[in-house]
Amino acid sequence: MEYDQKRVEVCFSPAVFDCFQNPEAVVVVVDVLRATSAICAAFMNGVESIIPVGTVSEAKEYKEKGYLVAAERDGIVLDFADFGNSPYNFSQERVKGKTIVYSTTNGTQAVRLASPCHAVAVGSFLNLTAISSWIINQNRDVVILCAGWKNRFSLEDTVLAGAIAKNVLEHPSYSTVCDSTLAAIDLWNLAQPDILGYIEKAAQRSRLRKSGLDDVIGFCHTPDLTNIIPVYSNGILVPLVEQVGVC
Amino acid sequence: MEYDQKRVEVCFSPAVFDCFQNPEAVVVVVDVLRATSAICAAFMNGVESIIPVGTVSEAKEYKEKGYLVAAERDGIVLDFADFGNSPYNFSQERVKGKTIVYSTTNGTQAVRLASPCHAVAVGSFLNLTAISSWIINQNRDVVILCAGWKNRFSLEDTVLAGAIAKNVLEHPSYSTVCDSTLAAIDLWNLAQPDILGYIEKAAQRSRLRKSGLDDVIGFCHTPDLTNIIPVYSNGILVPLVEQVGVC
Repeated sequence: MEYDQKRVEVCFSPAVFDCFQNPEAVVVVVDVLRATSAICAAFMNGVESIIPVGTVSEAKEYKEKGYLVAAERDGIVLDFADFGNSPYNFSQERVKGKTIVYSTTNGTQAVRLASPCHAVAVGSFLNLTAISSWIINQNRDVVILCAGWKNRFSLEDTVLAGAIAKNVLEHPSYSTVCDSTLAAIDLWNLAQPDILGYIEKAAQRSRLRKSGLDDVIGFCHTPDLTNIIPVYSNGILVPLVEQVGVC
Repeated sequence: MEYDQKRVEVCFSPAVFDCFQNPEAVVVVVDVLRATSAICAAFMNGVESIIPVGTVSEAKEYKEKGYLVAAERDGIVLDFADFGNSPYNFSQERVKGKTIVYSTTNGTQAVRLASPCHAVAVGSFLNLTAISSWIINQNRDVVILCAGWKNRFSLEDTVLAGAIAKNVLEHPSYSTVCDSTLAAIDLWNLAQPDILGYIEKAAQRSRLRKSGLDDVIGFCHTPDLTNIIPVYSNGILVPLVEQVGVC
């Protein structure tokens, strides 16, 4: 019996997402350092929902309405915001049971960019196995969208995209003819034995080090701390708990 | 003594070339399968100059003026053209001493896109060592622009970009903080022991096979058949013979 095979694709930059146009696909957004890791951490710590906003002015408007706002640009917390982009900011004490507003340089904008697709979810190393199972359970084409850095390719996002793609392609319903997917998997295979050593050379690693914000690198590359899948629905991210291994 | 270090960057798609804006840089355009390999082959066979044109209608206008025109879209020779995109078409009998007009799906348009930069040259495996020396002799920032496929990432262009970047970074005047450069070098290191085996999985490899156009794969991945550097100047590509190793 021939399977109706679904496609796995990896998009290296929001600037080329147009090339992957496929309204029937599900999209997984990854921004390892740090937006999608922070979003997963927030849900692990009981946040009720997250409103990702694109612009600084939108974030400010929400603040004026009384929302708790996490907002940064280029790794710097915006002055009106309650806190920035470190996953450690999204502690249980701060976020449990709340709706928060979140705006970052790259990640939250990528989530919004993907919104016309069939479904949008947030991936990180923290939910690596769960997000891979979630994709397979959707039984649809998938585009893994790397948020990157200001539309440039990012090594840590690519390595995670490769890890997810490799997991999904182990399922017989999925295949790929996408060079960026093959490259991402090759880079993941190269990085996997010592992920932190590999990521040491990444540009974002250096940016965070320069700003003294690199305490999160280890945490952001820790696999499978949660089964929660943040999914984007009607403008907000809400948690879905994935039953790992049911595919 | 501290060097005034120059940057090496690799751009994976013409669609993100804006992110690499640097009018002081030199740009090397690569489109292994097949435009930049064909351009190098044409100069090896004595073509005097090549006019790269972006659109089909421009190519047609040149044909009407009596030029020899090579033009294809999606691997198919355009009906009014004299021949298509295979390096084997640019034989000595056909091109020696002539000016030809050339338009392809991706490669020739990338050359034109890069034209506002300080200098634009054409790279392929055929002139790998020469193009690396040429870059170093320019003593400027360099962006290696992968033509890709309709703005998508292409494995064979990336692997060549990695090979060039690695050569250039061996010179102490050059450094990089560019993730796509690091990824390209990692992929080149992976591919190098068996380049044709590695490229077997590339999407463009499959496209050419389906169209019966894959006889050129081996040729297009053969390093150092020539020291000629096609450089883009005032709208035309002209040959420069690089003295390899003078850097």
